[in-house]
Amino acid sequence: MAPCLMSPETLPSWPDAAPDLIAIAAGRAPAEIVLRGGRVVLVHTREVLDWQVAVAQGRFAYVGPDASHCIGPDTEIVELDGRYLIPGLCDAHMHVESGMLTPAEFAAAVLPHGTTSMFTDPHEIANVLGLNGVRLMHDEARGLPCSMFVQMPSCAPSAPGLETTGFEIGPEDVAEAMEWPGIIGMGEMMNFPGVIRGSQQMLEQMAVTARAGKVIGGHYASPDLGPDFHAYAAGGPADDHEGTCEADAIARVRQGMRMMMRLGSAWYDVESQITAVTEKGLDPRNFILCTDDCMAGTLVNDGHMDRVLRHAIACGCDPLVALQMCTLNTAIHFGLERELGSIAPGRRADLIVTASLTELPIERVMALGQWVAEEGRLTATCPHIAWPEAARATVNMARDLSAEDFAIPAPAGAAEGDDVRARVIGVVENQAPTKALTRTLPVRGGRVATDEHPDTCQIALVERHRATGGVTNGFVSGFGYDRPMAMASTVAHDSHHMIVVGTCRDHMALAANRLRALGGGVTLWSDGAERACVPLPIAGLMSDSPAAEVAAQAEGLMQAMRDAGCTLNNAYMQHSLLALVVIPELRISDMGLVDVTRFELTDLIET
Amino acid sequence: MAPCLMSPETLPSWPDAAPDLIAIAAGRAPAEIVLRGGRVVLVHTREVLDWQVAVAQGRFAYVGPDASHCIGPDTEIVELDGRYLIPGLCDAHMHVESGMLTPAEFAAAVLPHGTTSMFTDPHEIANVLGLNGVRLMHDEARGLPCSMFVQMPSCAPSAPGLETTGFEIGPEDVAEAMEWPGIIGMGEMMNFPGVIRGSQQMLEQMAVTARAGKVIGGHYASPDLGPDFHAYAAGGPADDHEGTCEADAIARVRQGMRMMMRLGSAWYDVESQITAVTEKGLDPRNFILCTDDCMAGTLVNDGHMDRVLRHAIACGCDPLVALQMCTLNTAIHFGLERELGSIAPGRRADLIVTASLTELPIERVMALGQWVAEEGRLTATCPHIAWPEAARATVNMARDLSAEDFAIPAPAGAAEGDDVRARVIGVVENQAPTKALTRTLPVRGGRVATDEHPDTCQIALVERHRATGGVTNGFVSGFGYDRPMAMASTVAHDSHHMIVVGTCRDHMALAANRLRALGGGVTLWSDGAERACVPLPIAGLMSDSPAAEVAAQAEGLMQAMRDAGCTLNNAYMQHSLLALVVIPELRISDMGLVDVTRFELTDLIET
Repeated sequence: MAPCLMSPETLPSWPDAAPDLIAIAAGRAPAEIVLRGGRVVLVHTREVLDWQVAVAQGRFAYVGPDASHCIGPDTEIVELDGRYLIPGLCDAHMHVESGMLTPAEFAAAVLPHGTTSMFTDPHEIANVLGLNGVRLMHDEARGLPCSMFVQMPSCAPSAPGLETTGFEIGPEDVAEAMEWPGIIGMGEMMNFPGVIRGSQQMLEQMAVTARAGKVIGGHYASPDLGPDFHAYAAGGPADDHEGTCEADAIARVRQGMRMMMRLGSAWYDVESQITAVTEKGLDPRNFILCTDDCMAGTLVNDGHMDRVLRHAIACGCDPLVALQMCTLNTAIHFGLERELGSIAPGRRADLIVTASLTELPIERVMALGQWVAEEGRLTATCPHIAWPEAARATVNMARDLSAEDFAIPAPAGAAEGDDVRARVIGVVENQAPTKALTRTLPVRGGRVATDEHPDTCQIALVERHRATGGVTNGFVSGFGYDRPMAMASTVAHDSHHMIVVGTCRDHMALAANRLRALGGGVTLWSDGAERACVPLPIAGLMSDSPAAEVAAQAEGLMQAMRDAGCTLNNAYMQHSLLALVVIPELRISDMGLVDVTRFELTDLIET
Repeated sequence: MAPCLMSPETLPSWPDAAPDLIAIAAGRAPAEIVLRGGRVVLVHTREVLDWQVAVAQGRFAYVGPDASHCIGPDTEIVELDGRYLIPGLCDAHMHVESGMLTPAEFAAAVLPHGTTSMFTDPHEIANVLGLNGVRLMHDEARGLPCSMFVQMPSCAPSAPGLETTGFEIGPEDVAEAMEWPGIIGMGEMMNFPGVIRGSQQMLEQMAVTARAGKVIGGHYASPDLGPDFHAYAAGGPADDHEGTCEADAIARVRQGMRMMMRLGSAWYDVESQITAVTEKGLDPRNFILCTDDCMAGTLVNDGHMDRVLRHAIACGCDPLVALQMCTLNTAIHFGLERELGSIAPGRRADLIVTASLTELPIERVMALGQWVAEEGRLTATCPHIAWPEAARATVNMARDLSAEDFAIPAPAGAAEGDDVRARVIGVVENQAPTKALTRTLPVRGGRVATDEHPDTCQIALVERHRATGGVTNGFVSGFGYDRPMAMASTVAHDSHHMIVVGTCRDHMALAANRLRALGGGVTLWSDGAERACVPLPIAGLMSDSPAAEVAAQAEGLMQAMRDAGCTLNNAYMQHSLLALVVIPELRISDMGLVDVTRFELTDLIET
């Protein structure tokens, strides 16, 4: 692999490179690379021209009909034989942690798919490690051979008063981050009820971002397009990716927000919204493509922004318009139109060589003026930072747990063999919201027991940030586990304690203690042994192993879940979302069982 | 007139206004103004909707189907009876001084035409008063009831080594100005040969601007679209308004520059370039409308950006696309898309009420949330700053001149009655370039005389910045003056000394001394008396009288020129451009006669 010479940290600015770029374009100095014989896609004009391109200092020096005058004895000449050059693709909103990969390994996985610019909101690590965690993500991003920008997370905790995160994010953190070179704006403002109510903290965080001249990311996850929606728009978020239907998309662009349409591992919001352009004929400039969340397996097997672009085209969007949606439109949104997102002088030399504008085979990828991938293989180095011990030792439990820690005592006065009515988190196939169920469960040996119930098992939220020893126990149904087992994960949105689900308290202790020893990850135990494990040593969220390895581990995990009787489609994601106390109806947190319809704690046993 | 309450200086920022805007949109607080019963033009989507608009704090609080919940007992309700609401118009590139008006009087003249945002390059005053002059323009702009942004001039002098300006602009001036609140970027980088050659000063000024995150204005005034053009684009200018044909426009947008198409008093570059959109089908987002230069008479009689917009529509452009070219496109170009240029929440409440999207009667105008004009009448106050004495005393001559100062001595050895061959500036009808002519002129009383030549008269460049007493004498032909006369002007692009043209040395002295006494302006004397005068007390460039008054004075001047025998179409502009030593072929400066083909001084009398 070639050493990583050029990164956001080392890339000369356009003004710094200008003397060289001018000299090359004028014919007084040679370019590093000249690409000729190809067809250049100009996203500014929506044209395809038989043009040539000269590259130097990580940037385009000349883009025009004839680059002969830019060629010197040491210039690398690339003959394109009629292939197209398109700008490198931009993912306008995403979470690196969703891939269970560090920024370096995420970049290594997506560069062969032609994604050269990413706008990533490290919301998950912010919950675990606070501003320091964001800084680590930022610092690794700055050393990569591509453009990974960081959006400062806005909402940690997501639900103040209902959960305890490892760290909290406040306006002063946002203000500090705005000074870092790789911070492009504020991450999604998920606390939309807070904005609508005029929450002082939320408004202050948005104000700090706006005053820094940066972009406020939006997240309005409600179908209500009435006054509340308008109030959110009036608060200042500049984009939104939470729309799911055409009306959502149209409503947002009419408010002067940019509509980010996502195709992630589990999000399918492009097809249902792109009709605003393809059928309703709205000006496409305010529509942008993104992934939001992609798991490692998707990256390895299906692609990244190339997958989204192909999908948008398959949905009937003009290929050049769709390309604008993941290049120029994104760049303009983030104030980077002079910096990237097009094949034009002065911009970062990010491009893809492809033989087809609809099939989009990603034959060769250049980022920051360097070849980084060829025929699906990474050819550049994506350097890791030295993640500090604090980022690797985040499973902070006071001691190993025993089966007794997961015991749910019978309520006072309940005798052996009595039945109690318990609140149960009901997982719903293919949906993020849960149902608040109740189940009749027997008292056995002074505890409430699930052993005899066909579908209800135990769930525990194990505190792992401050070694409080806290274990919140509860009940969950819907997984279908049918043997003695437990699964534990330190990916536990959004506060990322540890979620343990099991049919057996001994197994729950084994699984929890395994993650304590491992320093984080996901593990499944059944019939007395570990059946699958995805080690996630960084913050308990990410692996610094290659995506293919992590994808294989994750696939092993899903197989182990099925082997344990699980019947759900997307069981790992369901598991990791059970502590997401901003989505209805019933969730678990370190503070107890949460009724997310009323936004308050509730009792496990009905009285 | 209503007092000017809201101006760029006093307008709350969006974050500061956000609590109120949110409360209004959510229905918890009343708006100041609600407009209903109209059709709102959304430039983001290119739609016209039966929507309603609520305004407060100078900004749009709600833009949607029903603003009833924004109405309180004190809300002003405006019934639109089916009229359209369009965003206030933006002039993306202009020079206030071209109107011979101060910023306040310029704004007063254009607000009734619906221009609510201006991007103005005070290049002329920079030549006379340097950075202080730019600051005065900036400060007056900051107090106006509309959005007048200032671009920091980049090139004073325009031709270093060939002229002496009152002050020079250097990179440190540009750096200082970038800190001022009303500076939006750098004014047109006219020294395109310097950029192409890699001039360190020009590159440093552009770098200072880029590092401040602001826009570098372009000016590439050459038909050559080869490597030199590409080198200029690689240097960093983000826009250009100097194109004159479709190929120029296409070339610029293909380089990722924004093409500014101008319709000024003497510029007609829209019709010839807009075909890139209307016929060639290029993405219109990179095309922008502007005026560049408008004289007071144009503002009073023909309009401003409303005239340009009507013209673009008359050229076959879709009205909503044309509207985007002077609203949203402009705002995006200057990084102000979240601040102005659309009727959308949070943006400055700048709008026009009109009954037709093609005829564009400007019935009522709102800027910064206040009504500023109605049926062509200004209804707001445009406050003047107290222009300091230094800005009013800029005709800095050591003494009054006499006819003798304009005598052109015969060359050594030439006897009475001999002929000499003199270089003569040949004015060309309707063109900015001059011709370098030669004429045979007789020696009379030891001087070279023009008395007997049917078309050649004298020209003098009178130094007026440093009281050097310098008078550069020369010859000019083409005006057609046919009686004893002289015309003098302190508008003398770009260094703005004083240009005196006359058939009679006594009259030349009378005219020059009149401007010295007046403190600047334009005066025409013939047959022993002043026949017309346009006092321009501010820097010798601008009047602080209303546009209608200045327009009448200017019309009087043009009539006096015709009365003196002048046959040129646009004689005042021709007069004022005779010292513009960056446009070929022959010009005059305080340093002598300038051969602008070779960029060097040349002798008046051929040897």
